[in-house]
Amino acid sequence: MIGAMKSLVLLAAALALQAQSPEGVPAPSNVRAAAYPRILSDRRVVFQLKAPAAQKVQVMPGGGVNGMGKGPFDMSRAEDGTWTATIGPVAPGFHYYWFLVDGVPANDPGSETFFGWGKQSGALEVPDPALDFYDFQDAPHGNVHIHWYRSAVTGQPRRAFVYTPPAYDSEARTRYPVLYLQHGAGESERGWTAQGRANFILDNLIAGKKAVPMIVVMENGYASGGTFEEVVTKDLIPEIDRAYRTQTDRAHRAIAGLSMGGGQAMNIGLGNPSLFAWVGSFSGAGLGARDLKTMYKGAFADTAAFNQRMKLLWIGCGTEDNLIAGARSLHEALDQAGIRNTWWEGPGLHEWQVWRKHLNAFVPLLFR
Amino acid sequence: MIGAMKSLVLLAAALALQAQSPEGVPAPSNVRAAAYPRILSDRRVVFQLKAPAAQKVQVMPGGGVNGMGKGPFDMSRAEDGTWTATIGPVAPGFHYYWFLVDGVPANDPGSETFFGWGKQSGALEVPDPALDFYDFQDAPHGNVHIHWYRSAVTGQPRRAFVYTPPAYDSEARTRYPVLYLQHGAGESERGWTAQGRANFILDNLIAGKKAVPMIVVMENGYASGGTFEEVVTKDLIPEIDRAYRTQTDRAHRAIAGLSMGGGQAMNIGLGNPSLFAWVGSFSGAGLGARDLKTMYKGAFADTAAFNQRMKLLWIGCGTEDNLIAGARSLHEALDQAGIRNTWWEGPGLHEWQVWRKHLNAFVPLLFR
Repeated sequence: MIGAMKSLVLLAAALALQAQSPEGVPAPSNVRAAAYPRILSDRRVVFQLKAPAAQKVQVMPGGGVNGMGKGPFDMSRAEDGTWTATIGPVAPGFHYYWFLVDGVPANDPGSETFFGWGKQSGALEVPDPALDFYDFQDAPHGNVHIHWYRSAVTGQPRRAFVYTPPAYDSEARTRYPVLYLQHGAGESERGWTAQGRANFILDNLIAGKKAVPMIVVMENGYASGGTFEEVVTKDLIPEIDRAYRTQTDRAHRAIAGLSMGGGQAMNIGLGNPSLFAWVGSFSGAGLGARDLKTMYKGAFADTAAFNQRMKLLWIGCGTEDNLIAGARSLHEALDQAGIRNTWWEGPGLHEWQVWRKHLNAFVPLLFR
Repeated sequence: MIGAMKSLVLLAAALALQAQSPEGVPAPSNVRAAAYPRILSDRRVVFQLKAPAAQKVQVMPGGGVNGMGKGPFDMSRAEDGTWTATIGPVAPGFHYYWFLVDGVPANDPGSETFFGWGKQSGALEVPDPALDFYDFQDAPHGNVHIHWYRSAVTGQPRRAFVYTPPAYDSEARTRYPVLYLQHGAGESERGWTAQGRANFILDNLIAGKKAVPMIVVMENGYASGGTFEEVVTKDLIPEIDRAYRTQTDRAHRAIAGLSMGGGQAMNIGLGNPSLFAWVGSFSGAGLGARDLKTMYKGAFADTAAFNQRMKLLWIGCGTEDNLIAGARSLHEALDQAGIRNTWWEGPGLHEWQVWRKHLNAFVPLLFR
């Protein structure tokens, strides 16, 4: 079944190419019925926007450079005011982008929006024919609960996205371990499901018996009127343990995150060893100028105690990510100090395709 | 507690007005940390966009005219390339809008997006100081489940948003009646929670003992490769009855919708009397040129049988909605024919504020 769906997509693209009208297939990240952006069989991508009165229209990859290449890419105007650009080949995975209409960022109306860069942004999903671990498959599906609650720390309503595994409702007496999973800077509690497809990754791992069934809690890493750490420790964990059938001891509670969320996972997870026994940092900060003995509230000061207490410290990064050197240096310093840790590296930028792979590698190690 | 939150918002706006820096408060529909749009104490609203290279920037209400007034509204350019417009007073409620940047629709980066008009659109939420029935309150909260499943009718993955009432998990033996609730044209399964706040409306009605606890299922009214009616009757109802603790007889199943969704509710609900006993149409189509005796598969052909079989036929419309005459004519024709129906009318346009009120009036009548 690996890549069956993607092969079909590419086959359809090839057939459309033969028919010449129009080339390619709509990206899976498009809204219903949107013909553009279109993915060609060689993974080049065609963007289109109607903008008769604009002087200049460009395609801008999120951050200026991502798996789409280095932008902005100029679009060409047809007589009817339709602007078009073909770029790539584009790397498989998820890439934020927007149009620049006379210099003003504007979402492509053909794209779904995803909260990133502190705003709702368009994005391009390019299937990888070699991978289906993050796809909807015909396995049993868990649910993602949009869970509202009042935070005592901030005084405000907040919401968590809470994944419960497929058998959660039918096995009404089972209690489950919990993974707290955080997004990156400028993103939100929606990121891990909308961009990351965490629910499908968990569904597929659980169906394949590669991971134990677990609850995954995704909250928003920003808090005004308090710190996110306070929200997690004083509000969120008690709320989740009240509302869901959780295992409430530290041996059954993990925390991980990507980029900024990786830093939060290290801070909160290592800084509160009575609450967490499993920690993961996906493309997070490295050692930098910090002292291994004093960072994270001295979590690494006593090697033997750390190795006794923590069941997993997992660090990963894409090899094309600017943060790879820092992340690797942290891993090596930990190794040198005798602090047990698990290192992952593989091709990829500071992008969601890497974090999907991180989650897929990290989750099977938990709660064993 | 009525309007406490809104009074605070307006008070804060008034204080900011005194302080002169800047006036008003950010709209509740803004993304985190976005200063604009801002709502002034008199319900005028200030929009702002940085667009130095644009020739012309305007604010465009969804559909050209809504509770924001008739647009587009020209914005004025300051020397630094910031464009500003102050419009209104704006009607309380939820209004789609976008900027026109040299004629090209562009979402306000300060706004959350909401799926409407067949794309992700910005929107402005203006609090109504007299109403809090659709607000997050300190009542027990139900969950909204993002529920993925495979449709046999279309062959595609689909998702439903499923509200379960507050006690659903703690009272693990109780079975609940189900309301199927549909969005309007160009919207999606997300509309009733994101735009409509159906989850908070249900939370508040249930906490006030004004409605019986129920499950609410919100799906996407579009289906390619089959009809939405087939999806509902062959895929969705069996899936919901499998996955949730439902009461599965027609006396405990209702269907309602707004606008296009109201038409779907009438078609599917009245056309499948073995499945549904409660039907609601919010700002839906009227009688038009149709014959009362033959419409909806002859549902109204036998008055006595209809009145015996259907527990509720509910029709509502806003008095400023273009569809009001048609909706009222349907209600009057039904009355004349002796078909029992419940009519609601009240101030409002073809907008979500009216549909929130419809839901709040309709739900207490169900399953009694």
